[in-house]
Amino acid sequence: MNETDHHLIGHTPSAEGTDFFEARDPVKGEVLDGRYPEATADEIDRAARLAAEAFPGFRATNRADRARFLEAIAEAIEAVAEPLKERCMAETGLPRPRMDMEMGRTLNQIRMFAALVREGSYVEARIDRAQPDRKPLPRPDLRQMLVPLGPVAVFGASNFPFAFSVAGGDTASALAAGNPVIVKAHPSHPGVSAITARAVLSAARACGLPDGVFSLLHGRKPETAIQLITHPAIAAVGFTGSHTAGRALMDAAARRPKPIPVFAEMGSVNPVFLLPGELRANAESITAGIVQSFTMATGQFCTKPGIVFVVDGEESRAWIDRVRAAVAATTPSPMLSEGILKNFRTAVASRRDAKAPALTAEGESAGERTASPVVFRTDLATFQAHPEWHQEIFGPALLVVTVTSLEEMCAVARTLDGQLTASVHSADAELSDAAPLFATLEGIAGRLIRNGFPTGVEVCPAMQHGGPYPASSDTRFTSVGTAAIRRFLRPVCYQGFPAAALPPELRDENPGGLLRLVDNEPSRGKL
Amino acid sequence: MNETDHHLIGHTPSAEGTDFFEARDPVKGEVLDGRYPEATADEIDRAARLAAEAFPGFRATNRADRARFLEAIAEAIEAVAEPLKERCMAETGLPRPRMDMEMGRTLNQIRMFAALVREGSYVEARIDRAQPDRKPLPRPDLRQMLVPLGPVAVFGASNFPFAFSVAGGDTASALAAGNPVIVKAHPSHPGVSAITARAVLSAARACGLPDGVFSLLHGRKPETAIQLITHPAIAAVGFTGSHTAGRALMDAAARRPKPIPVFAEMGSVNPVFLLPGELRANAESITAGIVQSFTMATGQFCTKPGIVFVVDGEESRAWIDRVRAAVAATTPSPMLSEGILKNFRTAVASRRDAKAPALTAEGESAGERTASPVVFRTDLATFQAHPEWHQEIFGPALLVVTVTSLEEMCAVARTLDGQLTASVHSADAELSDAAPLFATLEGIAGRLIRNGFPTGVEVCPAMQHGGPYPASSDTRFTSVGTAAIRRFLRPVCYQGFPAAALPPELRDENPGGLLRLVDNEPSRGKL
Repeated sequence: MNETDHHLIGHTPSAEGTDFFEARDPVKGEVLDGRYPEATADEIDRAARLAAEAFPGFRATNRADRARFLEAIAEAIEAVAEPLKERCMAETGLPRPRMDMEMGRTLNQIRMFAALVREGSYVEARIDRAQPDRKPLPRPDLRQMLVPLGPVAVFGASNFPFAFSVAGGDTASALAAGNPVIVKAHPSHPGVSAITARAVLSAARACGLPDGVFSLLHGRKPETAIQLITHPAIAAVGFTGSHTAGRALMDAAARRPKPIPVFAEMGSVNPVFLLPGELRANAESITAGIVQSFTMATGQFCTKPGIVFVVDGEESRAWIDRVRAAVAATTPSPMLSEGILKNFRTAVASRRDAKAPALTAEGESAGERTASPVVFRTDLATFQAHPEWHQEIFGPALLVVTVTSLEEMCAVARTLDGQLTASVHSADAELSDAAPLFATLEGIAGRLIRNGFPTGVEVCPAMQHGGPYPASSDTRFTSVGTAAIRRFLRPVCYQGFPAAALPPELRDENPGGLLRLVDNEPSRGKL
Repeated sequence: MNETDHHLIGHTPSAEGTDFFEARDPVKGEVLDGRYPEATADEIDRAARLAAEAFPGFRATNRADRARFLEAIAEAIEAVAEPLKERCMAETGLPRPRMDMEMGRTLNQIRMFAALVREGSYVEARIDRAQPDRKPLPRPDLRQMLVPLGPVAVFGASNFPFAFSVAGGDTASALAAGNPVIVKAHPSHPGVSAITARAVLSAARACGLPDGVFSLLHGRKPETAIQLITHPAIAAVGFTGSHTAGRALMDAAARRPKPIPVFAEMGSVNPVFLLPGELRANAESITAGIVQSFTMATGQFCTKPGIVFVVDGEESRAWIDRVRAAVAATTPSPMLSEGILKNFRTAVASRRDAKAPALTAEGESAGERTASPVVFRTDLATFQAHPEWHQEIFGPALLVVTVTSLEEMCAVARTLDGQLTASVHSADAELSDAAPLFATLEGIAGRLIRNGFPTGVEVCPAMQHGGPYPASSDTRFTSVGTAAIRRFLRPVCYQGFPAAALPPELRDENPGGLLRLVDNEPSRGKL
């Protein structure tokens, strides 16, 4: 094996294990070059200890240095963008336009966190000045800001080999906050992971950061992941993936002698509700929108709409015909891995066999290595009797559920699991009719969408990508957008500190002009 | 039994159980009037369902209505302040000046959350406006704010019968956020709990809020607490108390089919580090300060300093003599309950028996129902060999650990558990010597104090009352101060919403002049 296939424990390659795996091209079905070792307990321990050793030095860096580090990571990745994209297409079957788009998003995201850290108000500084004459007791000077939590274990996702992987949003936000990161690479794109990790490490070296600020481990066994997150040096976990894996991490983290927070984003069915008036007015664009949204990237997005609720009637039946026609015109496309394709086929076959959700639409016949979109249809009573159909199928499958009224839509919304998103299509005249539905959906979803589709997760301050369990492990946080940094920070209050002993962010001069809460009033000024 | 002793499931008294307990006066050792039933599974279920039913109506209240509700609670409590204080002194043995102070703090706290909610910026509104012409894809309008989580179970603490109990900080912050609350009353002050609950409910009725917005359950069995927090309708938990009970709640919440966040504040030893120069300069005030801090309220504060580290030498030996004299002059005082007194005596006896921590100082001999302050002393090696002495003794006990250098202080700080607070006394000339110690302590404590003592937790925006585990369950949050509301809120993003369907806080007009993040810039203006 090549040294490029090794784990990277800080800057030191390591390959002590005797268990190896390989990457496969899901389109050609061929084994790709590279043999990746499963991380051993000793290697995990070394990576975690090195991260803990690097933490004091890394947390002591100033914000400008950390911003520079993030920018250096973006530059280092850009320098190997072409080899990354080539390897990524081979490992994931995703097409080049997607590579370009996802690479752009990933670089923007890293630079967005660099800008956030450089600006600095994300530390949420709060200052309550001393009141020495207060009765009955004087008030001391109290100043609070957010500081990093400690080494973060990040688990890359299969479906975003750049944007939610080695240098994706979790890594970028954890590093931005000042935490060392250990990435457990997703085993379906180990080559992409290795190239990305070397770029991150070259940036760390160029910026003179302590060894251990970043490490990469390979592995595909659940035990490897559990060993990593139960290591005493690990302070938090970022994860995007399946419910089974996410819950296993949550459980293991909760059972630790010292439990740690896990932020797991585990996908959802992202229900879409079509109100009759809007469907009547815009059947064509709703058809195009929903078909694009559930088939895009072969349905492999955590925000893929998996269930559509419509009020049964002439319009909705005509609309289902439109969907049928649109789906029939789709061409099969590859999935991210053989395992994912197999799971998709099994899930679809199980619904086919059940027959109660009638197969309503199907794309052109799939080949040996591709998936074809399918649409099932059922009524509300049957849907309610089958909780298994409330679950996500990862891939281009959609279930249309017919209801008889808006009240039934509200009632079924209340029974759904936690969701990343919920979408409602309603005409302006239907807005007040839709209000109770929105109120219900607000309780179960992290993002509510009107007259739009859930795929396409904007990276911005107002984004919430996370929802009530099981969509994510802790609905109080997001994994996309600037607020994602908040997952990996904790407040510390400094009482009675002289200026020289305070972090710059809390000093009277307010050198960066941060937005701070001073005596309960927001201010960018000095004291 | 009287109806005043019943559970209050919303406005409906209930007492279906057959298991009862009584309150005892810890000073007189007498049983007080009142017989309190242990909540049954059915009563817990009814309270939780009623809270879930009340939630949609309560979350739909506007901020002004919720602020008014909190103010009405404060007024209703004030109206029964005297009976509350009388009963509280009988149930807890705390003296009248403490009653007055804690009542004042409790009312201030409730009104502080009223003001926070009325002002409104706590919803952390973020608006990213649409960019319809953006290439390659238009950006939709995205607006985010914090909304309530759902029914919160609150567990009162024994040591703050007003401020961390039925209408304490957890309840006030959860209600302020828009969540129904079910309080499980602390069994050592059930009478105070019952009077307070009736005040809260009278305010709820006066404000026309849905029945179930507040309930009170009695109980003293762990199973009762577990049944409550594992009910599917409960969305979050607030707790202040022992590590054993807090961890049991954390574990039960994590094992639920749908895990929920638990915010447990479980106390700590709040280490104090005395640097030689400062000790030399201010031995007298440091003596008075530490003795007051560890003996105040019979040492029954979660921020009571339990361990002091000093550099061995002439000054520190002279200082220990001063402490000895000051402690000898203290008079014994009652503890909150017979159980707590017994636990304190057992813990002290176990250290006495161990002999290695030498008994250095003791207050005047304790009576049958009172506790006397004690100070033990040991050296670093012995301390390090006995992890059990790193743990909190709830009550007026202090352990002085002598070290040989500042480096040893830093080294031992690294081995301590998570703490609510850590205090360093250092002269100005010692500030740079103390810097590595502060940097270490920042990693293990939520609040760092210079030249002060940890007791006295200011209720203000900059307070952090919470620290790394085991001080609290999630160091990312506080249970004191305005930021405590953040525990019980979650962000929701509204995409493509017309003004009429948006919450007022997110509309262009910004009716309340909230501080919002608009296109990544803070603004109190309209759009």
